[in-house]
Amino acid sequence: MFHFELLHQDTSTSARLGRVVTAHGAFDTPAFMAVGTRGTVKGVTPDMLRAAGCQIILGNTYHLMLRPGSQIVRDLGGLQRFSGWHGPMLTDSGGFQVYSLSDLTRFTPDGVEFRSHVDGRMIHLGPRESMQVQINLGADIAMAFDDCPPADCPAERLAASLERTIRWAEISRREHDRLNIDRQQALFGIVQGGTDADERRRCAAALVKMDFDGYALGGLAVGEGHQRMVQTIDCTAPVLPAGKPRYLMGVGYPADILEAVKRGVDMFDCVLPTRNGRNGVAFTMRGVLRLRNAQYTASSLPVEDGCDCICCRGFSRGYLRHLFTVGEMLGPILLSVHNLRFFQRWMLYIRDAIRDNRLSGLSAPEQVDSDVPELAGE
Amino acid sequence: MFHFELLHQDTSTSARLGRVVTAHGAFDTPAFMAVGTRGTVKGVTPDMLRAAGCQIILGNTYHLMLRPGSQIVRDLGGLQRFSGWHGPMLTDSGGFQVYSLSDLTRFTPDGVEFRSHVDGRMIHLGPRESMQVQINLGADIAMAFDDCPPADCPAERLAASLERTIRWAEISRREHDRLNIDRQQALFGIVQGGTDADERRRCAAALVKMDFDGYALGGLAVGEGHQRMVQTIDCTAPVLPAGKPRYLMGVGYPADILEAVKRGVDMFDCVLPTRNGRNGVAFTMRGVLRLRNAQYTASSLPVEDGCDCICCRGFSRGYLRHLFTVGEMLGPILLSVHNLRFFQRWMLYIRDAIRDNRLSGLSAPEQVDSDVPELAGE
Repeated sequence: MFHFELLHQDTSTSARLGRVVTAHGAFDTPAFMAVGTRGTVKGVTPDMLRAAGCQIILGNTYHLMLRPGSQIVRDLGGLQRFSGWHGPMLTDSGGFQVYSLSDLTRFTPDGVEFRSHVDGRMIHLGPRESMQVQINLGADIAMAFDDCPPADCPAERLAASLERTIRWAEISRREHDRLNIDRQQALFGIVQGGTDADERRRCAAALVKMDFDGYALGGLAVGEGHQRMVQTIDCTAPVLPAGKPRYLMGVGYPADILEAVKRGVDMFDCVLPTRNGRNGVAFTMRGVLRLRNAQYTASSLPVEDGCDCICCRGFSRGYLRHLFTVGEMLGPILLSVHNLRFFQRWMLYIRDAIRDNRLSGLSAPEQVDSDVPELAGE
Repeated sequence: MFHFELLHQDTSTSARLGRVVTAHGAFDTPAFMAVGTRGTVKGVTPDMLRAAGCQIILGNTYHLMLRPGSQIVRDLGGLQRFSGWHGPMLTDSGGFQVYSLSDLTRFTPDGVEFRSHVDGRMIHLGPRESMQVQINLGADIAMAFDDCPPADCPAERLAASLERTIRWAEISRREHDRLNIDRQQALFGIVQGGTDADERRRCAAALVKMDFDGYALGGLAVGEGHQRMVQTIDCTAPVLPAGKPRYLMGVGYPADILEAVKRGVDMFDCVLPTRNGRNGVAFTMRGVLRLRNAQYTASSLPVEDGCDCICCRGFSRGYLRHLFTVGEMLGPILLSVHNLRFFQRWMLYIRDAIRDNRLSGLSAPEQVDSDVPELAGE
């Protein structure tokens, strides 16, 4: 079922235009996935996601296995039917959240033991459990269970992490083959190795032998900085098979996405659109707007001139400013929709530029605040 | 511009079927108005309101005059353009909120002096200020500024309140005539008088002489109980002109609405659909569901079988239960939409029954919890 169609290779960079076909429909690459951590993209209905041009949504294994539990999701028809998003979905493996959110107690040969951040109970999660949970959730793409080391960890920790990641990838691969009876779910491997080029290549080579349906770069955007992230992609992407999608996990800002696309990355996910939207911060092609600022009180302009989202088509900056000032839910809802649409528009620009072989000339909107009177246009 | 078309009079009750035409479109009566206190129905977009069948929305003068201020709303095109709801709107006069929310310091001959609950500044609000604010907001229907006495207050307080309400109604009428230059905004008087039949009739008679575009019954649903509320409507509605709409403010539950409709009331407003929706409580024609209850964890049923709202068409009770359990915004959003649709469906049933002269046989859904296994149908 699952396959990746490579439609065009940019002539001046390593960027690729493609299309991934899944059991729940196809999505265009380079693709940005909205994050629906607990079975919902925060504050946004599936209809709004479609209207914003989202094509694939990510769900979090860690959160969903804790609540409502993957068996409940399975009983209610799987993550798509459960959440009302009937298009393509991907679930992560749960590993990253165990390290970042839970009270991790210890590694075992078969995974990690941690205390749930919800109710404190002890839980074991390893490649076997993760594959069962992801099969229960039933997304189109599952991720291998990995060990994501902290940024700039000691060499021994990095080496141990790589050894685990490779071993667990093998177990994930085998276990997934066993459980994935109807062959509807694809499985991606995750390349780790910190910012060490040799370790990254070693991990990538080991995973490629296992023949995954796609390959992710994990353990980036964890504090190493834009430059070292880009260098790491530079040395890793070329050793991954051209015929499989490449996914940079947890990234990122428009400029990060652009640089990664130029280096051959096809998929991204990030909470930025919704997290910033909930907090009154809008992405625009001219920079960032902080809608709580008093300068917008009487502004009749849309958040972004020329944007076709429901927020910009129907509401003024002055109204958004009011909603955030008084704490009305509609502010976070509308600005999340705008930011989701902004990221989809950014991916459309990127795909158009690849198609026309002019990606090397594309520059990302600066991340400076445009909250200055000249730029606000009033 | 503003007029009321009386389309049909029920043969066995005093219920009327009608249509109110305003500058921003028409709405059918008996009508239930969703409450958009601060320029938004909480958690719901204007598109969702339309999809739920809402025809007229209420805005609160008190809240909007404090934030963002009525001049800002006027500068941004008036409440309709500001909020993105382009259909009919009504604003209350601000009086009720002054009494219920603010630190009321004293009555003046021309209004009330109070301390803002937002920033503590002293504000004077009387019929003149209220008319100016409501003209600035620019809704289709404005309300006269009244004194709403507490339930069961002493006779002297009630008498003083009536004297004020009548005097302020006259000032409201005159001031509104002066400010309402384009004659786009209608003005309703508010009948007070507690649960005292003589005082109600005396107030109604005085207001009718001032020839308002419609008449509201204020000071009900403030703790007097269903029976005394119904008795008060019984003695007040008949002395109001048949050719003008009658509006029971702040009501209410489906059974309250039905009894008031039978006594000739045409308009209602209440925060129940959204307030209960935000708290996980769903109205259905079979009673109330508390979606946080564990019994819904694995339920694949919609919130209400046969309901055509976006919540019931797309999502299960199990999913809603999950959203409320983990605290996701989408729970309040979807359940607010369902409850808004429920109240519109209830008004459709009522209007159909009037049209067919069978309203006396209609009974309201009971307000008991249907959270019992037999009724849940599982």
